[in-house]
Amino acid sequence: MRIVVTNCNTTRAMTAEIVRGATAAASPGTTVTGLTPAWGVESAEGWLDSYLSAAAVLDTLRTHQESGQPYDAVVLAGFGEHGREGARELLDVPVVDITEAAAHLACLLGRRYGVVTTLDRARGPIEDSLHAAGVAQHCAAVVGTGLGVLDLGNPADDERTLRAFLAAAERARDAGAEVLVLGCAGMTGLQQAVGDKLGMPVVDGVGAAVRLAESLVGLGLTTSRAGGYAKPRPKARTWGSGHGGPPSE
Amino acid sequence: MRIVVTNCNTTRAMTAEIVRGATAAASPGTTVTGLTPAWGVESAEGWLDSYLSAAAVLDTLRTHQESGQPYDAVVLAGFGEHGREGARELLDVPVVDITEAAAHLACLLGRRYGVVTTLDRARGPIEDSLHAAGVAQHCAAVVGTGLGVLDLGNPADDERTLRAFLAAAERARDAGAEVLVLGCAGMTGLQQAVGDKLGMPVVDGVGAAVRLAESLVGLGLTTSRAGGYAKPRPKARTWGSGHGGPPSE
Amino acid sequence: MRIVVTNCNTTRAMTAEIVRGATAAASPGTTVTGLTPAWGVESAEGWLDSYLSAAAVLDTLRTHQESGQPYDAVVLAGFGEHGREGARELLDVPVVDITEAAAHLACLLGRRYGVVTTLDRARGPIEDSLHAAGVAQHCAAVVGTGLGVLDLGNPADDERTLRAFLAAAERARDAGAEVLVLGCAGMTGLQQAVGDKLGMPVVDGVGAAVRLAESLVGLGLTTSRAGGYAKPRPKARTWGSGHGGPPSE
Amino acid sequence: MRIVVTNCNTTRAMTAEIVRGATAAASPGTTVTGLTPAWGVESAEGWLDSYLSAAAVLDTLRTHQESGQPYDAVVLAGFGEHGREGARELLDVPVVDITEAAAHLACLLGRRYGVVTTLDRARGPIEDSLHAAGVAQHCAAVVGTGLGVLDLGNPADDERTLRAFLAAAERARDAGAEVLVLGCAGMTGLQQAVGDKLGMPVVDGVGAAVRLAESLVGLGLTTSRAGGYAKPRPKARTWGSGHGGPPSE
Amino acid sequence: MRIVVTNCNTTRAMTAEIVRGATAAASPGTTVTGLTPAWGVESAEGWLDSYLSAAAVLDTLRTHQESGQPYDAVVLAGFGEHGREGARELLDVPVVDITEAAAHLACLLGRRYGVVTTLDRARGPIEDSLHAAGVAQHCAAVVGTGLGVLDLGNPADDERTLRAFLAAAERARDAGAEVLVLGCAGMTGLQQAVGDKLGMPVVDGVGAAVRLAESLVGLGLTTSRAGGYAKPRPKARTWGSGHGGPPSE
Amino acid sequence: MRIVVTNCNTTRAMTAEIVRGATAAASPGTTVTGLTPAWGVESAEGWLDSYLSAAAVLDTLRTHQESGQPYDAVVLAGFGEHGREGARELLDVPVVDITEAAAHLACLLGRRYGVVTTLDRARGPIEDSLHAAGVAQHCAAVVGTGLGVLDLGNPADDERTLRAFLAAAERARDAGAEVLVLGCAGMTGLQQAVGDKLGMPVVDGVGAAVRLAESLVGLGLTTSRAGGYAKPRPKARTWGSGHGGPPSE
Repeated sequence: MRIVVTNCNTTRAMTAEIVRGATAAASPGTTVTGLTPAWGVESAEGWLDSYLSAAAVLDTLRTHQESGQPYDAVVLAGFGEHGREGARELLDVPVVDITEAAAHLACLLGRRYGVVTTLDRARGPIEDSLHAAGVAQHCAAVVGTGLGVLDLGNPADDERTLRAFLAAAERARDAGAEVLVLGCAGMTGLQQAVGDKLGMPVVDGVGAAVRLAESLVGLGLTTSRAGGYAKPRPKARTWGSGHGGPPSE
Repeated sequence: MRIVVTNCNTTRAMTAEIVRGATAAASPGTTVTGLTPAWGVESAEGWLDSYLSAAAVLDTLRTHQESGQPYDAVVLAGFGEHGREGARELLDVPVVDITEAAAHLACLLGRRYGVVTTLDRARGPIEDSLHAAGVAQHCAAVVGTGLGVLDLGNPADDERTLRAFLAAAERARDAGAEVLVLGCAGMTGLQQAVGDKLGMPVVDGVGAAVRLAESLVGLGLTTSRAGGYAKPRPKARTWGSGHGGPPSE
Repeated sequence: MRIVVTNCNTTRAMTAEIVRGATAAASPGTTVTGLTPAWGVESAEGWLDSYLSAAAVLDTLRTHQESGQPYDAVVLAGFGEHGREGARELLDVPVVDITEAAAHLACLLGRRYGVVTTLDRARGPIEDSLHAAGVAQHCAAVVGTGLGVLDLGNPADDERTLRAFLAAAERARDAGAEVLVLGCAGMTGLQQAVGDKLGMPVVDGVGAAVRLAESLVGLGLTTSRAGGYAKPRPKARTWGSGHGGPPSE
Repeated sequence: MRIVVTNCNTTRAMTAEIVRGATAAASPGTTVTGLTPAWGVESAEGWLDSYLSAAAVLDTLRTHQESGQPYDAVVLAGFGEHGREGARELLDVPVVDITEAAAHLACLLGRRYGVVTTLDRARGPIEDSLHAAGVAQHCAAVVGTGLGVLDLGNPADDERTLRAFLAAAERARDAGAEVLVLGCAGMTGLQQAVGDKLGMPVVDGVGAAVRLAESLVGLGLTTSRAGGYAKPRPKARTWGSGHGGPPSE
Repeated sequence: MRIVVTNCNTTRAMTAEIVRGATAAASPGTTVTGLTPAWGVESAEGWLDSYLSAAAVLDTLRTHQESGQPYDAVVLAGFGEHGREGARELLDVPVVDITEAAAHLACLLGRRYGVVTTLDRARGPIEDSLHAAGVAQHCAAVVGTGLGVLDLGNPADDERTLRAFLAAAERARDAGAEVLVLGCAGMTGLQQAVGDKLGMPVVDGVGAAVRLAESLVGLGLTTSRAGGYAKPRPKARTWGSGHGGPPSE
Repeated sequence: MRIVVTNCNTTRAMTAEIVRGATAAASPGTTVTGLTPAWGVESAEGWLDSYLSAAAVLDTLRTHQESGQPYDAVVLAGFGEHGREGARELLDVPVVDITEAAAHLACLLGRRYGVVTTLDRARGPIEDSLHAAGVAQHCAAVVGTGLGVLDLGNPADDERTLRAFLAAAERARDAGAEVLVLGCAGMTGLQQAVGDKLGMPVVDGVGAAVRLAESLVGLGLTTSRAGGYAKPRPKARTWGSGHGGPPSE
């Protein structure tokens, strides 16, 4: 099985890390290909970035689709980022977003789950994304660690990241969470270290999405065309101006 | 991977059919073992049956656990039947119920899903089960076909079953469903025939649950003990009187 | 009027206590008969116990029904335990569960109510039961005292129980509760002592259920057969293996 | 026990009818006294009337309270009309509104209930009242018959009323109702005739409220003062101008 | 444009203050006329007062309407008080209540808003009013300051009021509010002082309602008669007894 | 006051029409400037288009902001399209989206509103947008006419458009709508013709948003920075590749 994983930002190092996590989580026989958008934002933090990222990811998927390389499913590796439903319209293969994927599996492991994410400003998009995916009901809390996406480094080795994560996890637990979700693709790898310390399961969205994508493909299921995810209508579309915004914008 | 699938009723022919469906849906390398409760009800239709079935299934799982045979996950193959949370308390391996499993995958395939089930009286338990599992939000409708569980026979070959299913599916579609869920373990196998006719994806809960169970095991995840699914407290429990009720009860 | 009250566990001393509370709460002219399941669990704490209890209670009601002794209504005296809807299917007389009963009356006394129960693990089943009964909207919180069901002893006389209850009640009040509900049949009798100290009404589910059952009978109302609570279909049912589980299971 | 039942309009014949229904529903030993507001509206149909009625009913209860006549509970006999929470603040005895009362009992009889009321314009206030009382979750539909309050006459004898009621009841059943609620105090007495024809329980709010009021008094429960229903603050209040509006307003 | 603003209580000084706030908020060319009910309550605090106020306000609007003076819209200046829907039935011009108005604008300024009001007992009516208006979803909290309506004096100058408001605002912020709403007509004028200190927008309902009323009039929109807000039916109505209640009631 | 109105697609004729509608709805003294994205999609129909549109609109607003031309508020004229929250982060002036604007005003005019839109595939994004804006509670239905955005032409003159709109409006009314919302910026101008025929108010989002934007500016209110809409963090962002997709994609 061939799974394409798209990073939601333009940072290639992060794509590599995500591919590592996805590969580690995949079944034997699954190959993972990573895509990095050619434009967009170096890290998605907030609504503006999320919408910019969504268009860039869709453009990336469109371009990849036109390349003719065969693949069986797509994983969208931006936690809480927009674009999911557009990819479902665009592609004929199953599309799984790491946000919803983590929540789906978390629901199978405990009565309530909590999400630990980066900056507090990421909470709004995550909450809306979980609701739109139909899995918000059992979310006890979305808690920020105060760390930016690119501050995460190699989280499993980083004492500061771990401390911030554990403090946020405690708040999620106090709000009723029995399972934790890693609320950023860049946290992949943290689940073992954190789970051991907390004594509760920790779900990484990248791994969850890879397994769910495999499940759909294995069962011969793909996106319904009978309704909201019908194929896009043929029409003129232009993907961006190509102008860079100043870094300080 | 070794997955145990429990039928929720005492009809061995139905266990065999479920095991066939589960095996067909499983990944290479997964073995499926079916369990049939030694007591309970020949088919679960309504609340009384569902509660009787729940205790019988838990007793079956308890007995199997004590047998010492190794296994990696359990699938509960009673659509809308009770017992799921008790099995999570009881066992140290992941537990996936076909009701929730079908809904989780259906949410990845369309904006709203519909469930087509047997008798109208099954709707209440199914609706409550989806809500308790946290996946009811995107359920557009639960629709009965008017067929009893044991009337299903071999559904893919049976014209009457197919017609009843398609009529119910139309009602679900009118209510907004873009994906269908087979609302009875005995409908396993119907997904291909029905999906082709309807032009929308059809999710079978048995297959969905097998794949989700594989996913949890593959990711090293199991039920949280930090909260509602802590291990049962040691105490005196007796599992039934062993007296049969009269058939007409 | 003749009301049958079923304990949800096999502890006869608790049945006696429940019957005392029910009798004290009943109108003049009402007689109360207590039933103790012949099998099941010595105290229901958590999901596994709740499902085992449900089947045992239904078997008890079935057996009692077949005995031919006349009665007018049934009260299910397991707070948060399963089985309610099955009893409605099974019996031709009104069925009132103490969980829903307490909530119904509490809604008439204040804008929000809180439930104080035994162990934290009881919270999940109680929350689900209130939701399924349609009375969860005004529930501000379900709070555990940390006491097991059989630790309650004679709660009105026990300083430790009272202290634990009052501490939990404070948490419910902070969450917005203006009325308290005793979240365990074994707490019957505590309402006076606790209400005086807290300055808010305390509703005991056993008394509430007895009065609601009397109300339904007095008004000539019983369970609707037009829908989800139709009579069970005739079919083969066996009620248990009769094998005891080891105490430490 | 002494229960005061307030009509919500100024039509004395309707008060008499309500008292008849309340008396028929009450337990032995309960006496029912009817109050008719000295001002207000001859029948409450819509929001304007409901608010006018609320103030008139509260003035009536205030005056009655000052009269010093002893009583144990109050029933508010305006289906869907405002004022309930104000009466709870004002009085030291339990207050039960027929809207909520019917819904509470209906929830004990079936999974979903429907309300059949007079004009369609009554639906809004009824829906809001059920929600504010915390019992809207299981309401499948509120359906109008197209009949005005004063058109009801003696509903049990009136063929036209019965036909309109049955037609509305069918719509409620199609929406999922398994139990019906009579959505107007003036429908009291219809429950027997309608229930027989429909094959489902029909709950009259007046009878339900009388029984619930008796239950609260019997259990020694009354409105919580710890929160939203604290006693009104002492201050200057004037109850109306005493000017009549023209009939055609 | 001619906007009529009704105070909900009988305190003329407060009407004057409200008119000042409304005039300051209005567009050039808009004139504001204040109405003070001739009867009712000197300040509305709690449910009893709110229902008394509702009838008095409707009587005031009815009398004003009959006076024949032309006007284009009505603003109801009682935060959380009842009567809104009755005024919509009664009048042919748009009606905007300050409760809903503040919430509507607050939703445009942040993801969640909080309401800071007077006494804790005002919270219930406010919460219900926001829900009935369809804007409760984004309300993070309704918080009381512990100050009575008539204690507010000139809030912008009063240190104690400001301190109490800021403390309550902090609690709203902790609950997730990003925007604050002044939860009492008598707080008009506080928005500047408070907003500066808190660093978040503060919405005054009086100003919001004036602007929304202007918007509706400017767009040629008025209340729908096609449904719940149809004109009141012609019938006999009497507006109060004219008797004053004792101050200490 | 200077209001900038952004079209969500690249069709300049539609921008002109929107500016005409916005100008007609604006108060005296307000000037309206239209912006057309330099890239994106010729009409937004579905999720893919909506995400592409969102990024293009944000790029347009960013570029306009950098141009230094003064303005007081922004109206986003894409009904149901994404991007709203990103614009709130980006800009220091109030941002009002026509989707939410129409819903806010509709809530003031009737108990429930309905949205009539173009293709059925637009329903999903509209429903999600109303929910995210906090105004979905009173939405009775979102109904498609089956017409594409660019089929609308001059809707007030076009018999086919009118017929399709009226048929959809009937369905919304049957679902409980008392007020209609025009669910596409290209429908601006239709409100008069349709409202007369239907006998209910019809709200155009463009006009509603202009008036709400004026209201916020007039009251000195702008987006909260205290939470989810904090300013975007400085970082590298690139706005598109500039490559056109083939028309048939």
